[in-house]
Amino acid sequence: MKLEELIQSSGEWLRGEGPEADIVISTRIRLARNLSQFPFLTRADDAARAEIERILHAQIARLTPRKALNYFDVTTLQRLDRQFLVERQLISRELAEGHGPRGVAFSNAENASLMVNEEDHLRIQVLHSGLALEECWKEINQIDDMLEEQVSFAFHQQLGYLTACPTNCGTGIRTSVMLHLPALVQTKEIQKVFQALHKIGLAVRGLYGEGSQAMGDFYQISNQTTLGKSEEALIKNLKDVIPNIIAYERRVRGEMVKENKQQLHDMVSRAYGILKSAQTITSEETMQHLSSLRMGINLGLIEGLRIPTVNELFIFTQPAHLQKLRHGTLDSSERNIARATYLRERLAEQN
Amino acid sequence: MKLEELIQSSGEWLRGEGPEADIVISTRIRLARNLSQFPFLTRADDAARAEIERILHAQIARLTPRKALNYFDVTTLQRLDRQFLVERQLISRELAEGHGPRGVAFSNAENASLMVNEEDHLRIQVLHSGLALEECWKEINQIDDMLEEQVSFAFHQQLGYLTACPTNCGTGIRTSVMLHLPALVQTKEIQKVFQALHKIGLAVRGLYGEGSQAMGDFYQISNQTTLGKSEEALIKNLKDVIPNIIAYERRVRGEMVKENKQQLHDMVSRAYGILKSAQTITSEETMQHLSSLRMGINLGLIEGLRIPTVNELFIFTQPAHLQKLRHGTLDSSERNIARATYLRERLAEQN
Repeated sequence: MKLEELIQSSGEWLRGEGPEADIVISTRIRLARNLSQFPFLTRADDAARAEIERILHAQIARLTPRKALNYFDVTTLQRLDRQFLVERQLISRELAEGHGPRGVAFSNAENASLMVNEEDHLRIQVLHSGLALEECWKEINQIDDMLEEQVSFAFHQQLGYLTACPTNCGTGIRTSVMLHLPALVQTKEIQKVFQALHKIGLAVRGLYGEGSQAMGDFYQISNQTTLGKSEEALIKNLKDVIPNIIAYERRVRGEMVKENKQQLHDMVSRAYGILKSAQTITSEETMQHLSSLRMGINLGLIEGLRIPTVNELFIFTQPAHLQKLRHGTLDSSERNIARATYLRERLAEQN
Repeated sequence: MKLEELIQSSGEWLRGEGPEADIVISTRIRLARNLSQFPFLTRADDAARAEIERILHAQIARLTPRKALNYFDVTTLQRLDRQFLVERQLISRELAEGHGPRGVAFSNAENASLMVNEEDHLRIQVLHSGLALEECWKEINQIDDMLEEQVSFAFHQQLGYLTACPTNCGTGIRTSVMLHLPALVQTKEIQKVFQALHKIGLAVRGLYGEGSQAMGDFYQISNQTTLGKSEEALIKNLKDVIPNIIAYERRVRGEMVKENKQQLHDMVSRAYGILKSAQTITSEETMQHLSSLRMGINLGLIEGLRIPTVNELFIFTQPAHLQKLRHGTLDSSERNIARATYLRERLAEQN
C-alpha cells in the first residue's frame, strides 16, 4: 500500500454508522507496551532504538496473514506525510515530531495502528466508528495476544505492564470515546459535564489528544487511571458514563428544537450556506460550521447531505489533507482558498 | 387598475438598465405646486382641503389620454397599502401618514406620480431607471405644462412658484439621483464625498428621503437650493457632479478588486450564500447582503443572477411588500421568516 492511496478514501472510523453515531464519532483503545530486553526510550541510545524498531517491524510483519498491516518507516516520510497521518489519527503528534528510528503499521481500513518508538516501544491502537468499546477491546486484545506469543513485554508481577511514563503503568490502557457535543457547548452545560467527569477520574481532551484544543465541539473522554484495576473494569467505567453524556446532549438538543426550532434551523442552514459559498475560509470557521451542519443533519433540519460526508469533510479540510489533494505545499492563505474550493466542490456534488 | 396588481411586478425605475445602472439606481425629479385660489395646507380647513382634492383629482383625470394615470383616494387605503406605496416610492411617508382628503395618481409603469395634499397641494414626481436627468426633466415639464393649461398655480413674479415651505419656493424643484456606493462606504471614503457635496449646496439622504437612514449603501443626492436659478441650472449642477461620484466609486471598486479580489469575492459569495440559506433574516441584514451581491454582479464576481432581480429583491423584501405577498398581517418575527423564505425561493429560481 502506498501512502498516496489513503487520500482516495477515509478510515472506517469515519463512516458515521456505528451505535449512537449522531453523537459518538468513534471509540479508541490504545495499549502501551515495551520490550523487556531493552531500556525505555528515554534511556535508549540510537543503536538500541534502531534494534527495537527492527525487531518490532519484523514481529508486526509476522502477524500477516492473521492481521494484515502496512508498515511505514516514519523517518523516511516527509513532514507533510507525517502531518497527514496525524490528521487521520493513525499516528500521534509525538511520533510525527519525534526523532530516531520509528515506524507505524496500520490496517487498510485504518482501524488498527501500531506505533513503534513513540513514548513507549510499542503503542497499539484500535479505532472504530460510533460507540464500540467491546469491539475495540476484543480487537486490541487479540493483537496484543498475538504479539505476546512472539515477543516478551516488560511486565512486573505487582505493577503490571511497565511503561515509560508511570501514569500508563499497569494496564497501559487508554480508552477514549470521541463525542460531538454542540448543544452542550452552545448552552454552556459542557462545564458541568467536565466537572462531573473529573470527579470520577475521567479526562476530557480535544480532537487531537493531550494538549489539543477542542475544535468543532468534539471532545475525547478517556480514563485517567491505568493501575489497580483490570482493563475490563476501566472500560466499564466509560461504558457506564458515556450513555449519560449522550442522553444529556440529546436532551439539550431536544430542548433547543422545542424552544427555538426556527433559530436553530437558521443557524444550521446559514452554516451550510456559508460552507457552500465561501471563497476563503479558515480551519476554525470550517470546523464550527461543519459542527452546526452535523447537528442539523442529525436533527432532520438539513436534507440531502449524509453524516459520513460531513465526517470526511472534517478530516479532508485539514492542512495536510488539503496539500495532499493539491499535490503541493500551500501557505496558510492558499490553504484557506483551497479549503473553500474543496468544500464548495464536495457540497455541490451532494445536490 | 387595482392596487393588488402592482405586486405582480416592479416599477420601470427598478429595471436596472438605464445609463450608469451599475451605480445609479434611479433619477427622480419632483415639482411642488399649489393652486392659487386656496391657502397653503397649513392654513386650509377641512372644507378647503376637500375642495383642493376634488379639483386636482378632476384635473389629473382630464390629462387622459395624453397622460394616463391611476388615481387613488389615500384616505380609503389601509395602512398596509399606504406603506406598500411608500416602499415603491410612489408616495412619501408624509402623504401616507398625513390626514384629511388626499390622493395619489400614478402611471402604470410607475414612472410618474402626482400626490395631492401632501405638504403642497400638488407634488409631481417623475422617476426613471439609471442616470436620466434630461428624460425626467422633459417628462415632468410636460406634465407641469399640461396641468398649467388647466389650472392656475400660485406664482409670484419675483419669487416664482410659491410653496408651503420656503425652502421649496422659486422653482419648487428637487432633483435627486439614487446611487449605490458600497465601495465608498466600505473604505469610508463616503465621508469625503458628503463634505464635498455639502460645500456645493447638494444634500445627501437615505433610501426613503429626508430623515431616513442610508440602507444597503444607497444614497440620494439632490439639490438644496430651489430659488434664484433656473430649473435647467439646478439640474446642471447635479449633471456636473454625479459623474465624478460615479467615477470615484468605480475607481475604489477597481482598487478593491486589484488589491484584494479574493476577499471581495469571498464577501459577495458569502452574502449570496446567506441570502440563499437563511431561515430568518432582518430587513437590515438583507439590505446589507443584497448591496454586496449587487456590487458582486457588477464586478463579474457572481454569475447567473441579474441586476433587475436584485433591485426587485430590495423592494419586495420590505415589510409591506412581504405582507401583500402573503395576503396577511405579519409581526416582525413572522416577517423575518417570510423574508428569508421569499429570498430562498426567488434566488433558487435563478439557477
